[in-house]
Amino acid sequence: MITVLVIGIGTGSPDQLTTEAVAALNRTNLFLVPDKGADKHDLATLRRELCETLIDHDRYRFVEVPDPDRGPDAERATDAYRAAVAEWHAERARRYAATIRDQLGSDGTVGFLVLGDPALYDSTIRIAESIRDDGRLDLAIEVIPGISSLSLLAARHKITLNRIGQPVHVTTGRRLPEEYRPELGDVAVMLDGSLQCKQLLPKHGDLTIYWGAQLGLPDEVLISGRLGDVIDEIEAARNAARAQRGWVLDIYLLRP
Amino acid sequence: MITVLVIGIGTGSPDQLTTEAVAALNRTNLFLVPDKGADKHDLATLRRELCETLIDHDRYRFVEVPDPDRGPDAERATDAYRAAVAEWHAERARRYAATIRDQLGSDGTVGFLVLGDPALYDSTIRIAESIRDDGRLDLAIEVIPGISSLSLLAARHKITLNRIGQPVHVTTGRRLPEEYRPELGDVAVMLDGSLQCKQLLPKHGDLTIYWGAQLGLPDEVLISGRLGDVIDEIEAARNAARAQRGWVLDIYLLRP
Repeated sequence: MITVLVIGIGTGSPDQLTTEAVAALNRTNLFLVPDKGADKHDLATLRRELCETLIDHDRYRFVEVPDPDRGPDAERATDAYRAAVAEWHAERARRYAATIRDQLGSDGTVGFLVLGDPALYDSTIRIAESIRDDGRLDLAIEVIPGISSLSLLAARHKITLNRIGQPVHVTTGRRLPEEYRPELGDVAVMLDGSLQCKQLLPKHGDLTIYWGAQLGLPDEVLISGRLGDVIDEIEAARNAARAQRGWVLDIYLLRP
Repeated sequence: MITVLVIGIGTGSPDQLTTEAVAALNRTNLFLVPDKGADKHDLATLRRELCETLIDHDRYRFVEVPDPDRGPDAERATDAYRAAVAEWHAERARRYAATIRDQLGSDGTVGFLVLGDPALYDSTIRIAESIRDDGRLDLAIEVIPGISSLSLLAARHKITLNRIGQPVHVTTGRRLPEEYRPELGDVAVMLDGSLQCKQLLPKHGDLTIYWGAQLGLPDEVLISGRLGDVIDEIEAARNAARAQRGWVLDIYLLRP
């Protein structure tokens, strides 16, 4: 029997993993690493170093699985686009399943390392299900929760995500401009590649923003204040962080 | 200098703490325990056992701080009620500050153990700020994030909290009936003492519910399915869980 462990590793810093997650690393025979291209190379390095630090044996391997080509771009939100994405996902799952069969036969433990928490804006659980269903591999899935970047953002700013008795809304940068209303409560924004909160400035410049980038890394940066006052400072800090590593991971909370 | 550590302990099971949280336990000289009365007694026991398991020295103490009486109940949402609550909070902070001065003088590390994650529906960060401001104690606050019950609920059900590219809304049982709209995305409900999702049955019985109680404990129970189909089963399981321990902690996600 194959077991797939979807392991939340928080920031990827060894002290941010739970004991359960460390035990899961030590149970794993085969770590599968999506090949996302050069710009994410130091995330792959981070995963290997984490395993070298936390695994107390050498009976495990890392295997990179090249992603299939996505094929010609179709217009988003069309049936053709959705069909192309679904086929791309199925093809990727078949490649993973083939790699697992090659490496482990029919018995062993596969690990996927997920930055943050597998429960928030991460596709690994769906990939594992697709390996089972599209890749036709008999497997059991276990999910080990991790410290989400949202929890870490709040901890670093020493705030709660909600005000007393009020809601928290978690959304994406793409959705924020048309979705935002103060009645949503505190709004946390993930997957925002271009600070969509700038679109809110004309009507909601008085919001308080709690922003953080590269959380948990040595170059972590935190900025908070009135949105209208600090947005330029945030944009400059974001560009500087990206210039340093080639990528930036950031997140923020907007509080009425 | 006094340092106050607000330490997220997840479910309170030793394997659900991060290495950072275990290190924070070991840095603490004085654990302050709110005295919440008999029904939460086994939560206090859980905290002590956790420290006995994870702390590798004996240079720490537990001190219970009795909560002040709340005084006569006023009508909620009135100025009188808010003033009474504010004074109650300030009095509690002064008691904590006095206990810290008695026990540590002006130097040492105080720990508060927070079930789940201090960032979600928990008042400990505010209490620490109030000890500093109302209790007039010079202190530095550090927050160590924990695995929230939301993350654990998702892990146990092997789901993400969001659907692809969609938002997640986190709210309270009290707010749910008037706040619910499918446009909110997946809705996670916390602090719900009476399954307020029952109010949604007439219009939203087709929602999928992912429910869990006593998460991380040996008597953990999980139920999922169409809200209209499984609500009776959930209510029965919830009552049974409460009958066994005298209290029940549960949480759920509603998915369109």
